Amino acid sequence: MRFRLVDNIWDELKRYTVDDNYILITDDNIYRLYKDDIDRLLCVRNNILLIKPGEESKNLENVVKIYDKLVEKNIDRNGFILSLGGGMIGDLAGFAASTYKRGINYVQIPTTLLAQVDSSIGGKTAVNYGGYKNLIGTFYFPVETIIDIRFLKTLSKRDFISGLGEVVKYGIIADYEFFKYIKENLNGIFDKEDNILRYIVGKSVEIKSSIVEKDKFDLNIRHNLNFGHTVGHSIESHFNYEMYYHGEAVILGMLVELKIAYLKGLIGNEYFEEIRALLLSLIESYKFNEDEIDGLIKIMKNDKKNIDRKIAFVLPVGKGKVDTFFDIEEKTIKDAFLTYYRE
Amino acid sequence: MRFRLVDNIWDELKRYTVDDNYILITDDNIYRLYKDDIDRLLCVRNNILLIKPGEESKNLENVVKIYDKLVEKNIDRNGFILSLGGGMIGDLAGFAASTYKRGINYVQIPTTLLAQVDSSIGGKTAVNYGGYKNLIGTFYFPVETIIDIRFLKTLSKRDFISGLGEVVKYGIIADYEFFKYIKENLNGIFDKEDNILRYIVGKSVEIKSSIVEKDKFDLNIRHNLNFGHTVGHSIESHFNYEMYYHGEAVILGMLVELKIAYLKGLIGNEYFEEIRALLLSLIESYKFNEDEIDGLIKIMKNDKKNIDRKIAFVLPVGKGKVDTFFDIEEKTIKDAFLTYYRE
Repeated sequence: MRFRLVDNIWDELKRYTVDDNYILITDDNIYRLYKDDIDRLLCVRNNILLIKPGEESKNLENVVKIYDKLVEKNIDRNGFILSLGGGMIGDLAGFAASTYKRGINYVQIPTTLLAQVDSSIGGKTAVNYGGYKNLIGTFYFPVETIIDIRFLKTLSKRDFISGLGEVVKYGIIADYEFFKYIKENLNGIFDKEDNILRYIVGKSVEIKSSIVEKDKFDLNIRHNLNFGHTVGHSIESHFNYEMYYHGEAVILGMLVELKIAYLKGLIGNEYFEEIRALLLSLIESYKFNEDEIDGLIKIMKNDKKNIDRKIAFVLPVGKGKVDTFFDIEEKTIKDAFLTYYRE
Repeated sequence: MRFRLVDNIWDELKRYTVDDNYILITDDNIYRLYKDDIDRLLCVRNNILLIKPGEESKNLENVVKIYDKLVEKNIDRNGFILSLGGGMIGDLAGFAASTYKRGINYVQIPTTLLAQVDSSIGGKTAVNYGGYKNLIGTFYFPVETIIDIRFLKTLSKRDFISGLGEVVKYGIIADYEFFKYIKENLNGIFDKEDNILRYIVGKSVEIKSSIVEKDKFDLNIRHNLNFGHTVGHSIESHFNYEMYYHGEAVILGMLVELKIAYLKGLIGNEYFEEIRALLLSLIESYKFNEDEIDGLIKIMKNDKKNIDRKIAFVLPVGKGKVDTFFDIEEKTIKDAFLTYYRE
């Protein structure tokens, strides 16, 4: 895995576009925002494939469109797919790259905070199928991932916060000093100060990639990354992926799971309140009613991370430390949902 | 890679069908021939997916049919795809297995000689796309490959010889003693004697898998397996994959490439005649005219194995030994085509 934080992405990409043996995949929004730079980079207009923005584009039909483009341009085994976009574009382009001619080079240029600090790291490619998220996919690593924080300047507030949730998560699961840095620099983060953005993105990439490196195929240690995700996924799914962005659901998920850890006595009051305060500064809490909670628990029971139908939770057990638990009683889970936002 | 030669495939497969967490993929022909055994094995009728026989079934539409079956049966990450068939079924099922939930278990049960000694070994999965053979695919290894020579008894003569070509190839590229064994037991082979079939299949698997083991992603040593294939592929392609089976084209390819080796002085007359005689006992030679030869050379120039547009040939250089050459003159190639079958 090779990651580079660069100052001018367009200069960096030139090395891949000198030979006419590449295609660039991006979405309409990014093309509209960076049209002049992209056109200058590509020289040839038909090397670009534009995908409609939105999660619903992450499907096999678009994979086939990529294959057709690769065939049209006669891209060979030494060719490149340049993937410029958020998680959807990265997952889709990565899947096509991993299956065309049994795998060609691809270069990731993540443009959202969530993609820069999370989805671009870890070699997971995927498309949705038959109503299931990421049902079809491969493990496949890009030749390099190039990160330019300029793209974060044009992100919407919701997209930005969605990514911030994962950034905060890294502090909680692996690095308390980093957690404190985020807490102390929250204003600078929201003001998108260059040096601060560079630091939090770089640090997040460092933490996630060191965890992935130890467990490329997601068999054990990598599970630590799921803090907030058991509850987070159930919230996304319960609201049909419409009400919350992934990162927002994960922030709520972390709040609930943090409360579970506190109720189980895994962490003390002071640390609990410290994390809780930071998470609540990112998002409006939501008051779940009993019916909703029952529905959420039902969804969690079907989570693919479970073993023997017991719900798997990754919970904080100390500063910068988490562990996996399979024996949390339903009552505790309910209590956490009902009280996570209260005093 | 794990290969087992077994005496009763139906007994061996039971361990995979005890839990209702598998599907079996096969083609109509095999199902018709082994219906009773298969029905007894499966218990549940809807765990089977039948594919229409023939290379044209190796496409994305059938991959989608497999996905649908996996979703319908709710196969999870511990589930199995049992792939019972020749190369087409193996390539197709393997591709689906490698991409469903980022890879689930699959078990290969090759039923043709070509699949048992060649296509089931090496972790290459593929489907054809846009008129190109194997354009879409992955490297993915089955949990095990189980071989039962009973399936060879119902093979057509052409299918059997097609596989024999690759068996002979292993002797030529890696093991002269094995080559002699084949030569001396040709009658027993054609009579499909159990002990002889078991020996040649086992030995072929051993040779190919030891080569693949050293070069899983087909970067160097594995190229040795391409003896006969530069010319063989061009013949298949020139006749639109209709006139010759893959293995038959490879036998003709070996004859032509053998002649190139002889013309270049890489091997002596005695060894040349020894190989030539065995290959000519397998197939009727074909007299290529000058126009055909020009067409074949044009196809070879586009082979994906070439470097800098120079045609790559793997040629015998001694008993059980081959090497790769990029500098064979067109005149020598033509001469070989014109004279390979003559005195």
